[in-house]
Amino acid sequence: MTQSTQIRLRRRPEGEPTPDDFETVTTELPALEDGQVLLRVRYLSLDPYMRGRMSDAESYADPLQLGDVVVGGTVAEVVESRSDRRQVGDLVLSYSGWQSHAVADARHTRALDDAHPPSTALGVLGMPGFTAYAGLLLLGRPEEGETVVVAAATGPVGSAVGQIARIRGARAVGIAGGPEKCRALVEEFGFDAAVDHRAPDFRERLAEAVPDGIDVYFENVGGQVWRAVMRHLNLYARVPVCGLVAGYNDTSAPEGPDRLDAFMRLVLTKSLTVRGFIQNEFEREHFGAFLEEMSAWVADGRVRYREDVTHGLENAVDAFVGMLAGRNFGKTVVEL
Amino acid sequence: MTQSTQIRLRRRPEGEPTPDDFETVTTELPALEDGQVLLRVRYLSLDPYMRGRMSDAESYADPLQLGDVVVGGTVAEVVESRSDRRQVGDLVLSYSGWQSHAVADARHTRALDDAHPPSTALGVLGMPGFTAYAGLLLLGRPEEGETVVVAAATGPVGSAVGQIARIRGARAVGIAGGPEKCRALVEEFGFDAAVDHRAPDFRERLAEAVPDGIDVYFENVGGQVWRAVMRHLNLYARVPVCGLVAGYNDTSAPEGPDRLDAFMRLVLTKSLTVRGFIQNEFEREHFGAFLEEMSAWVADGRVRYREDVTHGLENAVDAFVGMLAGRNFGKTVVEL
Repeated sequence: MTQSTQIRLRRRPEGEPTPDDFETVTTELPALEDGQVLLRVRYLSLDPYMRGRMSDAESYADPLQLGDVVVGGTVAEVVESRSDRRQVGDLVLSYSGWQSHAVADARHTRALDDAHPPSTALGVLGMPGFTAYAGLLLLGRPEEGETVVVAAATGPVGSAVGQIARIRGARAVGIAGGPEKCRALVEEFGFDAAVDHRAPDFRERLAEAVPDGIDVYFENVGGQVWRAVMRHLNLYARVPVCGLVAGYNDTSAPEGPDRLDAFMRLVLTKSLTVRGFIQNEFEREHFGAFLEEMSAWVADGRVRYREDVTHGLENAVDAFVGMLAGRNFGKTVVEL
Repeated sequence: MTQSTQIRLRRRPEGEPTPDDFETVTTELPALEDGQVLLRVRYLSLDPYMRGRMSDAESYADPLQLGDVVVGGTVAEVVESRSDRRQVGDLVLSYSGWQSHAVADARHTRALDDAHPPSTALGVLGMPGFTAYAGLLLLGRPEEGETVVVAAATGPVGSAVGQIARIRGARAVGIAGGPEKCRALVEEFGFDAAVDHRAPDFRERLAEAVPDGIDVYFENVGGQVWRAVMRHLNLYARVPVCGLVAGYNDTSAPEGPDRLDAFMRLVLTKSLTVRGFIQNEFEREHFGAFLEEMSAWVADGRVRYREDVTHGLENAVDAFVGMLAGRNFGKTVVEL
């Protein structure tokens, strides 16, 4: 029998998650059935959407139940196989969550080639990269010379958004927290401009960075950044909304006045398109093209990526809380 | 020389417009130049968007200047012509505003046939009808069996939205103020259900009227109706936004809490599409098809319309204020 060390949801976090919201349990995995593989998890992906799954508010996916292993994408090695599809030693993408080992249906795993480091299947060549690609190209549809703005811009989604925007001939402006991230946006990721949302003169700097207004705002943050950005949206601007991480730990609505009506007036007077999406809406039709195109861009250096690697399952909760607070730099993964 | 009696903007209204915000002036019109026509206005259109033009807040069109004749679509008779395009006696659609006579470039007029009453060129077969048609079919895109909800549903836009939705096989639910309007929605306009937003149990009645949720909400009202509607929006619901008349007289934002973040979460979790628009975005490409199709629907009784006719230019301001407050029933026109 194989044992798995698992991080389970013990209670629903109120605001920022704390270690007491989780429990670590070692459990025996069942024997393999036909078609299944036994996986040793090598990397787990930490992503903002997981915070939503820990709450029981209505959302696009059912919430975790108390006692469930925390969900998430993983890169794993096949250590035992009862499927013709997978050999022992294969590296696969699976959805095993926060645990050391797992049993999975081989059909629910995707084989990884060795053209790129395996952890990229959780980032630039995985769900976050595809979120950027689909949201920007299918919904944002930037045209040459237009201005694209994205926040959390050194994160795996934001950095891909800006770089793809530039490949399409648009001007990319990134918003990030702190001078170090802002410097990397311009020097490492090739953004045209970067604005530090923690700077006291953030609003003035943002205005300077978008002299022609904003044609596409790729929304993955929300909150005060969104309030500052919206006043610069141009006529017919597009706002794909894939995340609102600034508010994921909120426990109540901000104080008034109620800005909803003013926002709807902006939608009307600027003929805005605001479009929420989850990447799997587009997966079946577009993931293949994404993987081909993005792999080529990564290979030739047109798209760069950063990873923020934490070692050890026991540090996953801390890394997750830090990511929600913006303390990561690049795609957050835990290496086991 | 021909004299024109004109209603001009004297000062910008604060909240609900009052008679003192306007002044009535009789002025001499200049002699015609080549290519121009002299028009006697027969009908003027009163539309909610005019309230926006009276304010100097930034919007999709420049505001009226103090002293300007209030703008608006008009049906007029050519009483003198220096253009080959128009004969004396022709009825035309023009954009002459709130006045009895006007000089216009003949190219800026559209000849009306006599297949339908001329005032319909301001309503069901004009800008409001086209707003409904374009917003519903190009942006709302209802599919057979889906639920379409529209407020101000006995107005010229709302009544057309519901009837076109039914022609496309969707279920139409109208929201209107008072039992008389609600009865007319079902009995006269053929809506599947009607809900009175003034009823104390409005929210419960709305919930009962949309048991399968809402796939398209055609937004022309905003305010409290919007807050009640949004919780019923289905996954992938579309919200074309063409007006927000409930707030046009507002002078400050409503009290908190600030619902903007909660709304953005709804956009995200339901993959909503919220799209502001002004009908002239689609006019060049789609107005011809609209006029042909809508004329046929009106002729065969599949689309009905109501007009709320006020007599005399001197009553235009009262009629306008009443319309903003929802006291009209159908398309508001002033017959001169």
